[in-house]
Amino acid sequence: LGQRRAVNASVSIPQGPERLEEAGNLENLRAAARKESGEAFRGGYPFQDSDVHKWLEAAAWQLGDDSTATDPGLPDRVQEIVGLLRGAQDDAGYLNSYFMLAKPDQPRFTELVWGHELYTAGHLIQAAVAHHRATGRGELLDIAVKFADLIDASFGPEGSGKPIDRIDGHPEIETALAELYRETGERRYLDLAGYFVDAHGRGTLGSDTNHHMRLGYFQDHAPVREAKAVTGHSVRQLYLLAGATDVATETGDAELRAAVERLWAEMAARQTYLTGGVGAHHSDEAFGHPYELPNERAYCETCAAIASVQWSWRMALLTGDTRYSDLLERTLLNGVLCGVSLGGDRYLYDNPLHVRDGFADQEGAGGSHGEGDDGGGRRVGWFRCACCPPNVMRLLASLPSYVASTDADGLQLHQYAEGTVAGGGLALEVATRYPWEGRIALTVREASAGERTLSLRIPHWAREWTADVNGQAGAGIDGARSASPEGRGRETGGRDGGWLRITREWAAGDEVVLDLAMAPRLTEADPRVDAARGCAAIERGPLVYCVEAGDQPELGDGYGLDDLVLDVAAGLAAEWRPKLLDGVCVVTATARVRGRSGNAGWWPYGDVDAASGEVGEAVTLTAVPYYAWANRGVGAMRVWIPRV
Amino acid sequence: LGQRRAVNASVSIPQGPERLEEAGNLENLRAAARKESGEAFRGGYPFQDSDVHKWLEAAAWQLGDDSTATDPGLPDRVQEIVGLLRGAQDDAGYLNSYFMLAKPDQPRFTELVWGHELYTAGHLIQAAVAHHRATGRGELLDIAVKFADLIDASFGPEGSGKPIDRIDGHPEIETALAELYRETGERRYLDLAGYFVDAHGRGTLGSDTNHHMRLGYFQDHAPVREAKAVTGHSVRQLYLLAGATDVATETGDAELRAAVERLWAEMAARQTYLTGGVGAHHSDEAFGHPYELPNERAYCETCAAIASVQWSWRMALLTGDTRYSDLLERTLLNGVLCGVSLGGDRYLYDNPLHVRDGFADQEGAGGSHGEGDDGGGRRVGWFRCACCPPNVMRLLASLPSYVASTDADGLQLHQYAEGTVAGGGLALEVATRYPWEGRIALTVREASAGERTLSLRIPHWAREWTADVNGQAGAGIDGARSASPEGRGRETGGRDGGWLRITREWAAGDEVVLDLAMAPRLTEADPRVDAARGCAAIERGPLVYCVEAGDQPELGDGYGLDDLVLDVAAGLAAEWRPKLLDGVCVVTATARVRGRSGNAGWWPYGDVDAASGEVGEAVTLTAVPYYAWANRGVGAMRVWIPRV
Repeated sequence: LGQRRAVNASVSIPQGPERLEEAGNLENLRAAARKESGEAFRGGYPFQDSDVHKWLEAAAWQLGDDSTATDPGLPDRVQEIVGLLRGAQDDAGYLNSYFMLAKPDQPRFTELVWGHELYTAGHLIQAAVAHHRATGRGELLDIAVKFADLIDASFGPEGSGKPIDRIDGHPEIETALAELYRETGERRYLDLAGYFVDAHGRGTLGSDTNHHMRLGYFQDHAPVREAKAVTGHSVRQLYLLAGATDVATETGDAELRAAVERLWAEMAARQTYLTGGVGAHHSDEAFGHPYELPNERAYCETCAAIASVQWSWRMALLTGDTRYSDLLERTLLNGVLCGVSLGGDRYLYDNPLHVRDGFADQEGAGGSHGEGDDGGGRRVGWFRCACCPPNVMRLLASLPSYVASTDADGLQLHQYAEGTVAGGGLALEVATRYPWEGRIALTVREASAGERTLSLRIPHWAREWTADVNGQAGAGIDGARSASPEGRGRETGGRDGGWLRITREWAAGDEVVLDLAMAPRLTEADPRVDAARGCAAIERGPLVYCVEAGDQPELGDGYGLDDLVLDVAAGLAAEWRPKLLDGVCVVTATARVRGRSGNAGWWPYGDVDAASGEVGEAVTLTAVPYYAWANRGVGAMRVWIPRV
Repeated sequence: LGQRRAVNASVSIPQGPERLEEAGNLENLRAAARKESGEAFRGGYPFQDSDVHKWLEAAAWQLGDDSTATDPGLPDRVQEIVGLLRGAQDDAGYLNSYFMLAKPDQPRFTELVWGHELYTAGHLIQAAVAHHRATGRGELLDIAVKFADLIDASFGPEGSGKPIDRIDGHPEIETALAELYRETGERRYLDLAGYFVDAHGRGTLGSDTNHHMRLGYFQDHAPVREAKAVTGHSVRQLYLLAGATDVATETGDAELRAAVERLWAEMAARQTYLTGGVGAHHSDEAFGHPYELPNERAYCETCAAIASVQWSWRMALLTGDTRYSDLLERTLLNGVLCGVSLGGDRYLYDNPLHVRDGFADQEGAGGSHGEGDDGGGRRVGWFRCACCPPNVMRLLASLPSYVASTDADGLQLHQYAEGTVAGGGLALEVATRYPWEGRIALTVREASAGERTLSLRIPHWAREWTADVNGQAGAGIDGARSASPEGRGRETGGRDGGWLRITREWAAGDEVVLDLAMAPRLTEADPRVDAARGCAAIERGPLVYCVEAGDQPELGDGYGLDDLVLDVAAGLAAEWRPKLLDGVCVVTATARVRGRSGNAGWWPYGDVDAASGEVGEAVTLTAVPYYAWANRGVGAMRVWIPRV
């Protein structure tokens, strides 16, 4: 993860302004700043500014991050682009180059269905909060506050005296305003966030929407408090629920908390891929039906996985339950990281779990977003609808915020990565090769006086683990997963479990070692998941694996990945390959090559079990982490493999 | 089948004019006939006239059919509507109320991408051919010929002197012109059909198409002769290929024949549901990727199944191979008949193979076609886009044309249904309760002098059969499926098989009895079909069965169809139920109720085989023919059932 963050800092983020210049985003801001009429708007979408804001947010987090090397030119680029935004903002506080250039005479906030005005404003606010929080500088926050005040003066419930009682067709403003409240302490912003959360589902967008798009697409189908399942456009849904969770956290609203807990549980249990990816449908970029999780046609937009990470983290903070960080880790390491190439300069928009033999590099329905086609695992440098690349950048740059939480008792460590963590009266140094190795060594560098609880998340995938303090097993360890007196654990399940808690008076130099057993394992899906029925997947630690066609030399000519049947009775083996894919642990498995069908061939259905026993010779399969797929050209791939 | 055709004749067809009146289609024609400016066009689609034409075609076939009772008012309704068309046609021969009313000043044939001008004309021509062929009357044919001559004068290749060298965005004109050639003997129409077939795939529609729609949607992605697989909008694709097959048949063009044989084989082997349904994607109503055949989200538009039947029949005539009639039978009895209610007055637009527990009657993506929503098995009376209902009517009314073919040697019987068949020097009476029973008794009523070959299709699903002539087994029988001397057969496979040929000098009173063993059977899918992997389906004879939730009283409270595991080792039993669903043979099977998962519940993936052995008590499942589903309210249903 550190490696991927370093690439983000050294390649992805520094390249951002070039891409934004090429795509016209920065020129739009300059044109808006000139405030001359007749300037053309560049780019295909009214939310082009949001790409700039998301890049700025990424750059801001990066500027505040000591753990990875920041590009030396970055501070100047940030200042320059903040300057562009300041120049473009009008006296009323409004700032959106699309509406300023393309629709100068149209009243503000009237094109709410497709205009993305509040969505774009939300990303500006997020960037400003990041910039202020990470660098202490106030220039961008001033711009955002001015815009937020304009929005606050414009939107509100009937009877509030504010003129507009409607929502934006793309959520984002909700969580942005909650963050702005946290950064400024200004309660108005939280109240406005709460208003927007509850203004969804009243159909206020209804009459403007065309009949092909359901209200669910715009998240205007049902109030959040009443919704039974995640639905509609997945990124819109998850941004909204992240905002709802922020509001529930800050206000203590129990009803809203119950709603987001219910919806998250529905998403996790019925609508989430093994990779953490969400949003099954290419059509409308939407959640599918429950358990509708096709592998080849998985949409799994990179942005939806990012939104899931953001929401899960907010749920973890709201509830303290480890399951949220369990899913966060899985989604981050599999469903998000696959979205950017190892080199940091090429992206995937949709992230299928299966590319069929002979059908790599086909047109995908996601192709309309890209330079050329982005289906089938062909990574591209930027997209016409470029939401994903800067979203990956901002998430990777902000990851230190997702590692730990604190409370009055001490520090909770949610994620494991090399680095330092401080808070809750403790400062720790973390040394680990996780997720390649399961050993996580924590050294206390500073500790406040008195008893403090250090809580370590035992990941839900961990079947066995040991823990010791200063070389002594079990000392002061209390784990909901029934740590034995020796500090050795085995999963016993239970929804409240997951934290290993160590309470003691800490001193600098204390060392805690958590060792998670990392044996590769075979996973199956709930049988309601049609697309994975009769299959197994390979996992190791938090990583989901896949097989890529190019890694299977034992497969004879004319046979492909889709001819394989995984032998689940044969063992798995893990091996570190330092030169492969920037260093990965591969997992090898045994498969049989399926005999070709003996039927007449024109019809793919036949008598049950007629072909049984036709399974052929054994071959060794080599699996690589899913996040690293499609980094060596296009080709067949699969996560779920039919099994015997 | 006879029963369904009788309902078509007594309910569906007579109701057609009422529906067309309510929807405004007939008023559009009256308004066009008035030739006054400022008349409004009614209905949402430029191809509204085609619903009228398809109904007329249905009514015309019905008028020529002695085997079912025709509504006494039908001849007058047909004459009245033919009169409306005559009144609306302009002096140049043009006839399309949408363009005449809504775009009177726009030059003809300029809105080819979405206008459906030639598509609508094609349906007019089909109706006219049917009317002339079935009734001998020429009024409608005169109208169609006048319009066809206008099209022939307008469209042609570069250098032909005709002004327009482009195609329509929706094929249909091709097969219509081929049929018009057959009816009139006018070679120009066949040449024009051939021109249109080969004009596809040159991208002539390209610049008008919006970027969300691929050229494949409009069948302009590749020349038919070069295409490797069926793709794009399924109805458009299949209408085009039906036309290409007509042209190949009439011209003897070997290259075109090879192309349609290849494309049909691709469709059958990789893109067809067990029911014969095709077109997996709701999005763009398109074919999916090979083997992408999701059950719950199957689109399987009724019109696509109808188009498949029409194409397969043309392939059967072109090649003489039984596989085409095998698929035709399967598609007709399962994928088409499900599209109309047993009562003949309510329809399905999309035909899924699975409705999940708790998710019947949900919004489906097909909902935009209907009155309310038509996903999840809720049948409706008519659709805003009403292509399917009159298409069902015309197919059912024209079915006698799909039963038999003739050649110099004699008569080939492709489909089995009660009735009379004549041609190839033989006239037969067919007595059978097929598909409920396998016994088919043929009595020769008339026979020409000399040897004649009577060829009987042994359906590809038939595992055992016997045949005798005048009570004598094996007399003169020659079957590619290795009929034994006793006239008993067992399938041996082979692509040239399928015909049982009996050559002799026939005399009136000769009787042939073919008896196909009708034991219910369990079927599995090619393992590449993700959605059916690990499942079995129940079939009996040509019928695909499904389980509906309401038929399973043994299933305990709180358990649903999706909790069942079919015990494939237990037997199946068939039972005739005269009062159920207008009389059906049900099949009973044994299933186990799956134990509820022991995992923590928030995550649907777990260790492989961890839940094995949790399969619970046995219950008897009752399956009904798929064509009859959704006739008793909405509820869960499945064709493919997970198996042990």
